Amino acid sequence: MERDFIAWLRKHVPAHANLQLGPGDDAAILGSGQRGDFVVTADLLADGVHFQLEVAGASRVGRKALAVNLSDLAAMAAQPHSAVVSFLLPTSDAKDLAIELYEGILPLADQYGLAIAGGDTNCWDGPLVISVTALGQTTPHGALLRSGARPGDVVVVTGSFGGSRLGHHYDFSPRIEEAIKLAADYEIHAAIDVSDGLSLDLSRICQESGCGALVDLSAVPISADAKHLAEQEAEVDAGLRRALQDGEDFELALAVPAKEAARLLAAQPLRIPLTQIGRFIPEPGLWQQDESGARRPLAVGGFEHGSKESW
Amino acid sequence: MERDFIAWLRKHVPAHANLQLGPGDDAAILGSGQRGDFVVTADLLADGVHFQLEVAGASRVGRKALAVNLSDLAAMAAQPHSAVVSFLLPTSDAKDLAIELYEGILPLADQYGLAIAGGDTNCWDGPLVISVTALGQTTPHGALLRSGARPGDVVVVTGSFGGSRLGHHYDFSPRIEEAIKLAADYEIHAAIDVSDGLSLDLSRICQESGCGALVDLSAVPISADAKHLAEQEAEVDAGLRRALQDGEDFELALAVPAKEAARLLAAQPLRIPLTQIGRFIPEPGLWQQDESGARRPLAVGGFEHGSKESW
Repeated sequence: MERDFIAWLRKHVPAHANLQLGPGDDAAILGSGQRGDFVVTADLLADGVHFQLEVAGASRVGRKALAVNLSDLAAMAAQPHSAVVSFLLPTSDAKDLAIELYEGILPLADQYGLAIAGGDTNCWDGPLVISVTALGQTTPHGALLRSGARPGDVVVVTGSFGGSRLGHHYDFSPRIEEAIKLAADYEIHAAIDVSDGLSLDLSRICQESGCGALVDLSAVPISADAKHLAEQEAEVDAGLRRALQDGEDFELALAVPAKEAARLLAAQPLRIPLTQIGRFIPEPGLWQQDESGARRPLAVGGFEHGSKESW
Repeated sequence: MERDFIAWLRKHVPAHANLQLGPGDDAAILGSGQRGDFVVTADLLADGVHFQLEVAGASRVGRKALAVNLSDLAAMAAQPHSAVVSFLLPTSDAKDLAIELYEGILPLADQYGLAIAGGDTNCWDGPLVISVTALGQTTPHGALLRSGARPGDVVVVTGSFGGSRLGHHYDFSPRIEEAIKLAADYEIHAAIDVSDGLSLDLSRICQESGCGALVDLSAVPISADAKHLAEQEAEVDAGLRRALQDGEDFELALAVPAKEAARLLAAQPLRIPLTQIGRFIPEPGLWQQDESGARRPLAVGGFEHGSKESW
């Protein structure tokens, strides 16, 4: 099947200005593109762990495998440049499956101006595995890191959270344009993409920045999907718990200096809402404030206890 | 296990001049390194398909997963720069396994000056899968491509071929220094690393270059391992067949202009032998010359009918 599939790929993967030499040799040669620094990120996804091929269909699975990497580039405010895509395909129908995966990958790559620079295609008698490595380039405004939050900064998030397993984790839009616009027009101290749950990823910004965060639970934007799932659950505040812990929201969490945050929240410059959900504080860890004003630790939970960790 | 393993990684993966920002954020930021163009290549390996974890041990498997990518960089005459390494680990003993894999990866990375830029670690109840994407940089002499062979060029190979399944496919040395030295000191028209069998990979140079090759079968260097395996086989010329078709030799096959080849072969500038095994001809395809001087087609065989194809 491989030769057929490679022929299909060569026909359907467009030439791209980001590549001096495209797929087909021992390695691809990257063009200098926007001429910023290159950033690199990788995600590996397996059937039954990170997606359900039977339920979702191959095109959505392929799309997701690229989109999760684009979300990491967004968290750095990097412009997508190129990606390599490797498959481990179940032997039955391998070629058709590989093509369907690309039918999800190619439109998303095109949408974000990303070149497919090659990959590696393999067959076996196990489930589908997809590994994508994406390269981006920093803009003249530099990369957003996790480590820049300072006490007094405001915690700002894009969009809403929780319940992504109803479909959002396949169909989300990586926040590339949003991150690049924010980095260009505002002073942003730190950023992360929320892949493993809002509370867990917020705690990672805190850890890397050497501070903590006080979260205003009443301000956390709960998605319609999280609310819908919560309706069927006995637990009080199930929607909020989902928003804090479900993961795979692929929204951005940002640290923004207080004055700049006021300007940002008033302007609402994105097509999606920006919401203040708390502020960074000197005390390490995540905290919530109860009605009396007293601080209590906020449980950090998320996908960490699942099966995936990028580093 | 992931948090423990990430902690281990952060302690054992050294800081590296090739990274402006190392592992730990949403993406790593690459330093400009040697300031050549970046090249990128990827390989995905699965237990039972590309290696036998039980037989080889995790350290050799980890080494191989990086080494096969380095061999692709060698084929481009690119200097290793950085790599991202993703695992899909069997749930039992995942942390110990991941660490053992890195105990094979890190010394090889260090040997070739390559930075580990991050990766993605996952667990599941299936076999071990490793995906490595390697970045290199071209030297001032540029990249060696598959497409530059011309009729009249000599086919030159490094080392010897066949029988790699006796262990060479784990323990081979990627021909990085050799390729860079050859590209710097000699006029080389084309290159490929022999991963899928000498005959198949030579046919790929021919295909990309729009020519053919006439192989002098008596000149093909047969490895000791191929000879050893051939002793137990009834077939006449089993050693030669293995040299032409076994694959995973990870030697280089080169197209060298005739005069330059004479200089190269006389000088023997590498610590491993360089051998002329034929010449490129205008007629497409692979050919052999029999004792009467007549040309006959040479069967192209190799790992293609197995389960792996990079592009």
